[in-house]
Amino acid sequence: MFYMKIIYFDNAATSHYKPRCVIKAFLKAVRISANPGRSGHKLSLKNANIVYKTREIIAKHFGNIDNSNVIFTKNCTEALNFAILGLCKSGNVISTVLEHNSVLRPLYYLQSLGKITLTLATPKNKKFITKDDILPLIQKDTKLICVGAFSNVTGNQNDITSIGHLCREKNILFLVDDAQGVGHAKVDMKKQNINYLTFSGHKGFLTPQGIGALCVNNSPPLSPTLLGGTGTDSISLKQPKYLPEGLESGTLATTLISSLYSGIKYVEKHFIKHSKRVEKLTEYLIEQLSLIEGIKIYTTHTKTGVVGFNYKDIESEQLSDYLDKNYNIATRAGLHCAGQAHKFFGTVNQGIVRVSLCFKNKKSEIKKLIKAIRKYKKK
Amino acid sequence: MFYMKIIYFDNAATSHYKPRCVIKAFLKAVRISANPGRSGHKLSLKNANIVYKTREIIAKHFGNIDNSNVIFTKNCTEALNFAILGLCKSGNVISTVLEHNSVLRPLYYLQSLGKITLTLATPKNKKFITKDDILPLIQKDTKLICVGAFSNVTGNQNDITSIGHLCREKNILFLVDDAQGVGHAKVDMKKQNINYLTFSGHKGFLTPQGIGALCVNNSPPLSPTLLGGTGTDSISLKQPKYLPEGLESGTLATTLISSLYSGIKYVEKHFIKHSKRVEKLTEYLIEQLSLIEGIKIYTTHTKTGVVGFNYKDIESEQLSDYLDKNYNIATRAGLHCAGQAHKFFGTVNQGIVRVSLCFKNKKSEIKKLIKAIRKYKKK
Repeated sequence: MFYMKIIYFDNAATSHYKPRCVIKAFLKAVRISANPGRSGHKLSLKNANIVYKTREIIAKHFGNIDNSNVIFTKNCTEALNFAILGLCKSGNVISTVLEHNSVLRPLYYLQSLGKITLTLATPKNKKFITKDDILPLIQKDTKLICVGAFSNVTGNQNDITSIGHLCREKNILFLVDDAQGVGHAKVDMKKQNINYLTFSGHKGFLTPQGIGALCVNNSPPLSPTLLGGTGTDSISLKQPKYLPEGLESGTLATTLISSLYSGIKYVEKHFIKHSKRVEKLTEYLIEQLSLIEGIKIYTTHTKTGVVGFNYKDIESEQLSDYLDKNYNIATRAGLHCAGQAHKFFGTVNQGIVRVSLCFKNKKSEIKKLIKAIRKYKKK
Repeated sequence: MFYMKIIYFDNAATSHYKPRCVIKAFLKAVRISANPGRSGHKLSLKNANIVYKTREIIAKHFGNIDNSNVIFTKNCTEALNFAILGLCKSGNVISTVLEHNSVLRPLYYLQSLGKITLTLATPKNKKFITKDDILPLIQKDTKLICVGAFSNVTGNQNDITSIGHLCREKNILFLVDDAQGVGHAKVDMKKQNINYLTFSGHKGFLTPQGIGALCVNNSPPLSPTLLGGTGTDSISLKQPKYLPEGLESGTLATTLISSLYSGIKYVEKHFIKHSKRVEKLTEYLIEQLSLIEGIKIYTTHTKTGVVGFNYKDIESEQLSDYLDKNYNIATRAGLHCAGQAHKFFGTVNQGIVRVSLCFKNKKSEIKKLIKAIRKYKKK
């Protein structure tokens, strides 16, 4: 399955496995290459139809939001920027120390411009964020709460359902960074009272890199972060305000959008089977890691196959390099673009070794990892 | 060659033809899917190498700029926004009425915020922009001049060499939108004194949609338009300032970057042969169109295979639809996201029919187009 017989445990960065249907969808779209939503000829319309169908499946996947509220982006980071920079003009925003820099850097930037104040919640239970971590931080001018569905460092699931309820109660907008969650855990934007949800295709939805989306469910108008040709109102120098065009300037990545359609179809079809498999593999990994003396595990409950750990006081990058060089085991070490989480865990210097599993991984691969770590111990 | 035996004359929107090497490069990169510049394992490094090689070939292609000054974007529009929004904080900017909305809308937006003043040049010769159109508009606080290498409506080539000289003389920054030019005409950023050049892969470089770049050659720091994880300085909430990371937040589209490498290689290899072919086809098209009574041609000198025309007072979309429905000939009508150009040409209501050729097109296809237009006449 893997190139160079690599044991690939870095699926939370980019899934290595891409289903055949995803690649086929890409190639099919390449064969009819043309611009969607620009020209009016047959090939252009076929491309527009790919885009439409994909908007539709995404809208349905996240709880039947409006198709036109699915905005295609190049990755989850762009989607987060579109929401955060497009919305936050004043007031207070609450986020958490566990977030990725794709959430915290745009927020910090707005704070440094003096536009917003930023408050970061910490998990009292040391593991994941609940509404109790957020509630005491709410101010009169709190307008937005940003929480990831899962930490990309530990894989731990935040309690976004309870936070969504709190947001509804307090009339605060709610943004969920679902980069780590898609393909692993279902989210219903309407039922869970989520206003903005962002994701990329290349992790849980198993597409090539270069495609993501911002999903919007009831929102004040977002000002555009990028402006340009939309194929509509071309005579006007003003960016149109309506969605999705207002936030989708320039040519869309139709071939990747086609892949995303197939990726979501595939994920939905095998959801129960694959989730169970990832769950079992994760349990096994945690169980086996726990048996090694000197292992500290940061993951308590996850659905994403992510397990963060450290071995004694060994620098995470050293251990990760050792696994790669000697055993072709691909993990991710360091800070995972989430420095504040590491400040919280006290792992700024050591980092954390992150194993992130896919349903394609095997128990035997985990056994090899455990063996390798044990051997490192013996050194 | 073409799906459904379509005669594809819409290559200035998206090239229909994608060389086998471009698709192979995509598939090769898919097989080693992992994150470049994040993890340190073998697959991650292989992906990083793809990104590095592509930066290198782009840097060389545009006149040996620094590799680190090649910033990958999702399309040309994003690249233009990164340059314009990242640079223009005050002063005057000069652009032209012939530009695409991807240039004019970000500029107009900055003007509407009161940050800059915007002056639009018109071509005195009615065809293309020269330095004589720009010179009288220069003000004391003019900081940037933005001109496309070729109009996307008429295909006419602007005299960017003379404008580059003018910019050097007056110490003004120069941005060239090369969306239409890549693959057709060579640009040397250093020799032509260009500070910013933007392009996408899916037109002249024959890649799938979803990849483009901003190339920078001597520039004051550009403030980031998007912020997030860069795989560097992760402990800091501040976006790093150095390039390319400072402007490349989130996961890069490695598979498309791989395609772009092969697309550029392919284009460079066949450049002379293909340019000559496009030139001949364009000449033939213009010559044949000219023989039809009632045809008005807006194209005078181009290298991009773009020919804009109208037939009597027939709405461009009507003629384009007729060609598509009856003859499977794909052209683009309307305003081409360049409304100000149409204001200038007096074609806001009629639009313009745009035929954009590729070296893969045939003389026989042009004959069919001419025949079809003549038949429309007889109706």
